[in-house]
Amino acid sequence: MSENRTHAEIPMKAVGPVRITGPVLAEDVRVPLATLERPLWPSVNRGAKVSRACGGIGVIIVDERMSRSLLFEGQTAAEALAVKESLSGRQADVAGVVEASTRFGKFCGLHFQVLGRQLYIRLEMTTGDAAGHNMVTLAADRLASWLACEYPAMSYVSISGNYCVDKKASAVNGILGRGKYAVAEIVIPDGVCASLLKTTPARVVDLNLKKNLLGSILAGSVRSANAHYANMLLAFYLATGQDAANIVEGSQGITTAESLDGALYLAVTIPNLIVGTVGSGKGVAYARENLALLGCTAERPAGENARRLAAICAATVLCGELSLLAAQTNPGELMRAHETFERSANE
Amino acid sequence: MSENRTHAEIPMKAVGPVRITGPVLAEDVRVPLATLERPLWPSVNRGAKVSRACGGIGVIIVDERMSRSLLFEGQTAAEALAVKESLSGRQADVAGVVEASTRFGKFCGLHFQVLGRQLYIRLEMTTGDAAGHNMVTLAADRLASWLACEYPAMSYVSISGNYCVDKKASAVNGILGRGKYAVAEIVIPDGVCASLLKTTPARVVDLNLKKNLLGSILAGSVRSANAHYANMLLAFYLATGQDAANIVEGSQGITTAESLDGALYLAVTIPNLIVGTVGSGKGVAYARENLALLGCTAERPAGENARRLAAICAATVLCGELSLLAAQTNPGELMRAHETFERSANE
Amino acid sequence: MSENRTHAEIPMKAVGPVRITGPVLAEDVRVPLATLERPLWPSVNRGAKVSRACGGIGVIIVDERMSRSLLFEGQTAAEALAVKESLSGRQADVAGVVEASTRFGKFCGLHFQVLGRQLYIRLEMTTGDAAGHNMVTLAADRLASWLACEYPAMSYVSISGNYCVDKKASAVNGILGRGKYAVAEIVIPDGVCASLLKTTPARVVDLNLKKNLLGSILAGSVRSANAHYANMLLAFYLATGQDAANIVEGSQGITTAESLDGALYLAVTIPNLIVGTVGSGKGVAYARENLALLGCTAERPAGENARRLAAICAATVLCGELSLLAAQTNPGELMRAHETFERSANE
Amino acid sequence: MSENRTHAEIPMKAVGPVRITGPVLAEDVRVPLATLERPLWPSVNRGAKVSRACGGIGVIIVDERMSRSLLFEGQTAAEALAVKESLSGRQADVAGVVEASTRFGKFCGLHFQVLGRQLYIRLEMTTGDAAGHNMVTLAADRLASWLACEYPAMSYVSISGNYCVDKKASAVNGILGRGKYAVAEIVIPDGVCASLLKTTPARVVDLNLKKNLLGSILAGSVRSANAHYANMLLAFYLATGQDAANIVEGSQGITTAESLDGALYLAVTIPNLIVGTVGSGKGVAYARENLALLGCTAERPAGENARRLAAICAATVLCGELSLLAAQTNPGELMRAHETFERSANE
Repeated sequence: MSENRTHAEIPMKAVGPVRITGPVLAEDVRVPLATLERPLWPSVNRGAKVSRACGGIGVIIVDERMSRSLLFEGQTAAEALAVKESLSGRQADVAGVVEASTRFGKFCGLHFQVLGRQLYIRLEMTTGDAAGHNMVTLAADRLASWLACEYPAMSYVSISGNYCVDKKASAVNGILGRGKYAVAEIVIPDGVCASLLKTTPARVVDLNLKKNLLGSILAGSVRSANAHYANMLLAFYLATGQDAANIVEGSQGITTAESLDGALYLAVTIPNLIVGTVGSGKGVAYARENLALLGCTAERPAGENARRLAAICAATVLCGELSLLAAQTNPGELMRAHETFERSANE
Repeated sequence: MSENRTHAEIPMKAVGPVRITGPVLAEDVRVPLATLERPLWPSVNRGAKVSRACGGIGVIIVDERMSRSLLFEGQTAAEALAVKESLSGRQADVAGVVEASTRFGKFCGLHFQVLGRQLYIRLEMTTGDAAGHNMVTLAADRLASWLACEYPAMSYVSISGNYCVDKKASAVNGILGRGKYAVAEIVIPDGVCASLLKTTPARVVDLNLKKNLLGSILAGSVRSANAHYANMLLAFYLATGQDAANIVEGSQGITTAESLDGALYLAVTIPNLIVGTVGSGKGVAYARENLALLGCTAERPAGENARRLAAICAATVLCGELSLLAAQTNPGELMRAHETFERSANE
Repeated sequence: MSENRTHAEIPMKAVGPVRITGPVLAEDVRVPLATLERPLWPSVNRGAKVSRACGGIGVIIVDERMSRSLLFEGQTAAEALAVKESLSGRQADVAGVVEASTRFGKFCGLHFQVLGRQLYIRLEMTTGDAAGHNMVTLAADRLASWLACEYPAMSYVSISGNYCVDKKASAVNGILGRGKYAVAEIVIPDGVCASLLKTTPARVVDLNLKKNLLGSILAGSVRSANAHYANMLLAFYLATGQDAANIVEGSQGITTAESLDGALYLAVTIPNLIVGTVGSGKGVAYARENLALLGCTAERPAGENARRLAAICAATVLCGELSLLAAQTNPGELMRAHETFERSANE
Repeated sequence: MSENRTHAEIPMKAVGPVRITGPVLAEDVRVPLATLERPLWPSVNRGAKVSRACGGIGVIIVDERMSRSLLFEGQTAAEALAVKESLSGRQADVAGVVEASTRFGKFCGLHFQVLGRQLYIRLEMTTGDAAGHNMVTLAADRLASWLACEYPAMSYVSISGNYCVDKKASAVNGILGRGKYAVAEIVIPDGVCASLLKTTPARVVDLNLKKNLLGSILAGSVRSANAHYANMLLAFYLATGQDAANIVEGSQGITTAESLDGALYLAVTIPNLIVGTVGSGKGVAYARENLALLGCTAERPAGENARRLAAICAATVLCGELSLLAAQTNPGELMRAHETFERSANE
């Protein structure tokens, strides 16, 4: 690396505006995307144009939490179970220990797995406007100390037992929750499908069924059934100073599509959107600027800026997903190549 | 986004050198990593120091290929099966169609799934020094045209049926292969474990078992059992101009550890390392420079530069994985917090 | 267990006939089902009646093989890779060793996974009319001996490395194949849907989408998207002397449904139907009788009786799956309870 | 099926006694197993002998519940979310509706998934001594009626949305719980390993790591890492009148093994043991007799007989798992085949 090169300069562009209609926010938002895959910009742009042509994208945040799983073990399974049962009755004590370690975090609860004599303790908490990796790790560390005092018979194994689970594909994060659980949906009249997407609701529904759902099931995917969420998530995370390795969990989302009477209903469900507006990475100049331009640095109650950011991200994922699905329903490029092929075949 | 801001500047630093001992390459390599998570640099650096202190990291490339899954359907399942069986007997014809679309790509084979009357056709090919997304998509497009001519009874559904599978977690990519299938391994004498990693082989083996293997199984992970491959992959992919959304597949790897007599054996197995030294994204200045400094732009037979890059990447992943595992076996920070806690408790 | 009790007497009944229309067989077949869940009989019976009312069920066998995965390890990953590459070039030798151990088995191929320095070798072969567990285990044992002679540097770890994979849910069996890979499909006119199933194609398609596909994806299922294949498989396996523990793999199948013009298309895809007409368990009197009544004990080329049995089983699964899906689209029982509820609420 | 044949007679034998040491029960129990795989009897018997030679098997029941997932949908995702939030605040009302439908069932809670505008509502309850399929289905039906009254804007889709999930492999059942969550463990001194199992702790630990854990991960298994739980579960379920199709979930368990100082620690963790001592199937003569001989028909507080049965089942699974693992560590049969092979090779 040449000595004067201290940064990777990822090309960045603002697309949209994307029309978002609530309940989290209701406005048109231009979205910065940093990516080496330049076709992503026009693709998301097309989805954004559709959002403005048909009343916009509704986004909800179903849930939010960050988690870290401590790992302790007993002499026997019965010992591990006894600690699980004792802790289940001491939620207030645990909340006290956890919340003493943080200004913004709130304790949500513990989830347990007993495996032989090991006890996996998944600590869950809300983390305000931060993605919360450090907050929950610090809280877990304090909790581990407390557990070591309160249950001396148990041995400490690890501050993270991979039941958290961070930056790895899993099923647990979608079921118990990690990050923002966002759903974005849109209703697109037939006319808009035809004019802006060159397709029909029926074709998008059929492709979503056979590609995103059935194809992903055949591939042995777990809780993942979409075309390319990872592309939009990476570009959005890089542009806003997120830890982009969290696209691994983020990519595990599900696209659903239905034909309504005279319209297409399309939704993206993303249970593990791990984003924040403060904390690690948010200090770099370009990220701070982008968060400001997204309206995510205003004075608001703790957590609202992060939920706003997650909602914008989910709407952006919908734009890119919709655009690619529409393109793949269009046999145009195939047919062109087709003719080319036959010509060359006949020469 | 302020108008004059056209790039996301991700902080980048070269770590190492990492000692690699063959068979793909045998030398000490400094590795550029672009990341917002600055602790990653010292962490990988510690692993690199270990690699130099104990004879280095051996890396193999087990396999390489890129895939794209076409989707066609018949009137009946029998029709889909007939096409599968016909194609199985026409490998040479298929190879001709595929290889006519590319200068460097070589046809590897087709894999089929019949689902009801749908036929998923996974096209696999080698792609020289390119990651190969575009190469295989073009080949798939040509193949689709040819199939439409040869099997007119079948209807074309999609150029990609998600049995490929691109930027989504799955099981099929690890089983059939997609990208470089790399394994990196190291043998670390007890003394080096103690002096550089402040741990013992037994403690690393125990943590790998209970965290990376058992914890990941409990989490419902699929073919994924490691601590944080995604972190190293993201930083390496960003620094070398890769499509970093491929860390999703890349993150699905497995760490294995064993206690040898007087030493620790540790290996990272990464079946889906999707990297290239040419093609999309490699043109940007910083990426070109980094690829050159990694020695991956030399005149070599097609594919050798990309395999070299993959081997360096796998060794880098091992360095970061080893360092974090060692840190988590060290209850030091826990105990410090522990004392703090008790003090505060006694005040 | 009272001394004179030497058997579990599972109630058994023949249902149907089920109309099967080829290509494997074309006739009406009465199917014995052994189960403690008596509602299964009328349920499958209703599906059978539908099969006779609409031209029957088409069944194909896409593939067949049985597998066993040997596990060896080298000193290094490079050593394991060298053996993989050597074996890939010695298919004829391997076939010779494998086929020397069996009268009916034919070698299909080897599939490899290198994990660190471990080498998992998945041996695949056809097994005639037997399910083939013992045949492939014996062949694997002979192959292990041969490998130990030919590659003395490798250490033998196990005759089965769980990459086989027997009686456990996995993704590999559906992707590489284990047992009979069967697809059964039916086209049901609207009128028959209404008269015999009290439903419409649209309602079955909608339920299959939201329950079998989306619900199973949310549940973190792997290559499994159906309502209750396991029920029919258990009853069929018990009645025909199969090793019923293989319903675990068998249950991993996918139901697909589409609305055609004026009809419902429904298919069950079952990639891992592990059945045989000879071998372990087939000797017991009731099983021998049932196999004879199913026409699966006739003099035929090796494998044809087993394929016939698998086809009948797949058609039976379709009958039960169709019947339950139709019932669940019918809010009748809900509404009845509904009224009851309101009444009781008003008392 | 010959007219006079009304049952499948599955061979049945009592093995053991298995020594169980608490906390659920502490006694030696002979266990009836119904199976066509006769080698299972001596295999479990060997494990039972080990249990008596080393102080027995400890078994805990971590949790118990049965579940059924209703599926409703709104006009929008926001509507679905509103119902989720409303229900979260009406636990007492829901409990009232649920418990009005049953004499023994107790409401545990609801778990939700919002997917687009669909709302999956997983109802969980304890079911006394019954496995509880019918109890929870009836309760779900009553709850559906109540929901239809209370939330008329929502449309009813299905009484079961496959997020339950019944007789299908999944991740959700292990994470949220379904059936009895049992762990059985044993500590076997080196001497007993040598005399009764012809192996050593180190060899069992190594095999469990490379076969049950790593091999299953490679196979794309989900929350399943064992050698053959399904065999013991099938034989035990058939002998005690269970719905044996539930071995699908039951098979998803994890075997753990560790070398202690001078002994082997082995545990089987089975999160989804679905068994009952009353209800469907328990009326048949042989099942009633076996439940009585297992001491599971005594007058006890509701649930205790079923927990006792689950504990005996888990201990039986441990016996069979231990015996097979030990056998596979013993290269004896391999070496015999080995010599045979060389002889035949030299002729």
